Amino acid sequence: MTKIEIDSGGSPFPKPIALLGSVVKGKPNFFTVAWFNRMSRTPNIWGAAVGKTKHTLHGIKKNKVFSFNFPGADLVVKTDYCGIRSGKDVDKSELFDVFYGKLGKAPMIQECPVTVECTLHKLIDMSTHYLVLGEVKHIYSEERFMTDGVLDQKKLNLLLFTNPARQYWTLGDVVANAYSIGKTL
Amino acid sequence: MTKIEIDSGGSPFPKPIALLGSVVKGKPNFFTVAWFNRMSRTPNIWGAAVGKTKHTLHGIKKNKVFSFNFPGADLVVKTDYCGIRSGKDVDKSELFDVFYGKLGKAPMIQECPVTVECTLHKLIDMSTHYLVLGEVKHIYSEERFMTDGVLDQKKLNLLLFTNPARQYWTLGDVVANAYSIGKTL
Repeated sequence: MTKIEIDSGGSPFPKPIALLGSVVKGKPNFFTVAWFNRMSRTPNIWGAAVGKTKHTLHGIKKNKVFSFNFPGADLVVKTDYCGIRSGKDVDKSELFDVFYGKLGKAPMIQECPVTVECTLHKLIDMSTHYLVLGEVKHIYSEERFMTDGVLDQKKLNLLLFTNPARQYWTLGDVVANAYSIGKTL
Repeated sequence: MTKIEIDSGGSPFPKPIALLGSVVKGKPNFFTVAWFNRMSRTPNIWGAAVGKTKHTLHGIKKNKVFSFNFPGADLVVKTDYCGIRSGKDVDKSELFDVFYGKLGKAPMIQECPVTVECTLHKLIDMSTHYLVLGEVKHIYSEERFMTDGVLDQKKLNLLLFTNPARQYWTLGDVVANAYSIGKTL
């Protein structure tokens, strides 16, 4: 089939969704990110591109700790709300049941099936954004999201985000086992 | 429910999958990445964490151009193969129908519904990996993957990857429209 060139300003692949959390002016604040992923194996470093004007960034810079909180599909309304309303304008501290882990100042969301505490590793200037690099220190979940002691993505039912149609999705079906199906070639 | 601490060495969220392509020693080579995302809006910079010993890295460093190729579910066997076999040991140049775009030396995969040409922006040392930052220059797709002129994720049917169970998935259902559903709160 004929290839055609499309808008080169986009990023038309599915992305994970997380709520980035930090304490700003004494209150937990969360905002929605889709531009993040793992960046290194050892240490376990994750990077998130965060707009330079974001409220959550103040808390990350000040406390040097922050959190990733992975919302399930049941949290779609609050997740979207955290992406369209800034902590500068609205108080998001009562939106979720917040708990703290071993790092003390990285606010985490009880309603999220997976939450992660990070220490700030580095900030890299990316023009419109900072690439916030965090070293993962602790990951929390619950027994009810596991099958045979392993996290089960069907039970987690995490939100994903897609462009250009700007929609939230869930995962569908397992296609194949990785590091395995390719051996048949 | 009670939170429990789980393995802090993992990254248990769904990830996009792409085949990173470069020309190494005169031949197109592709390998599978899941640790990547967009990092900046303007310029449109994407970053991929690439193990320092990866064969594809030679071509990226030499030619200063490379590609992201997004495989659909029908390409799962070849996608996994490109993740488990190195271009040092096997010749992957005949695996796909390869085409070149405006940058000339960024090999792209005809069978992939979306392909992207990048120029190398920067390499950042991430301990076990390099963070390869590429500036997106051209994105290609086909009319048959669009609905009303917009890329349709259901038609693209791209692969996703999950940990810790190491599986490939497709997208499931749309949960809600982003930048919209949150306004109801």
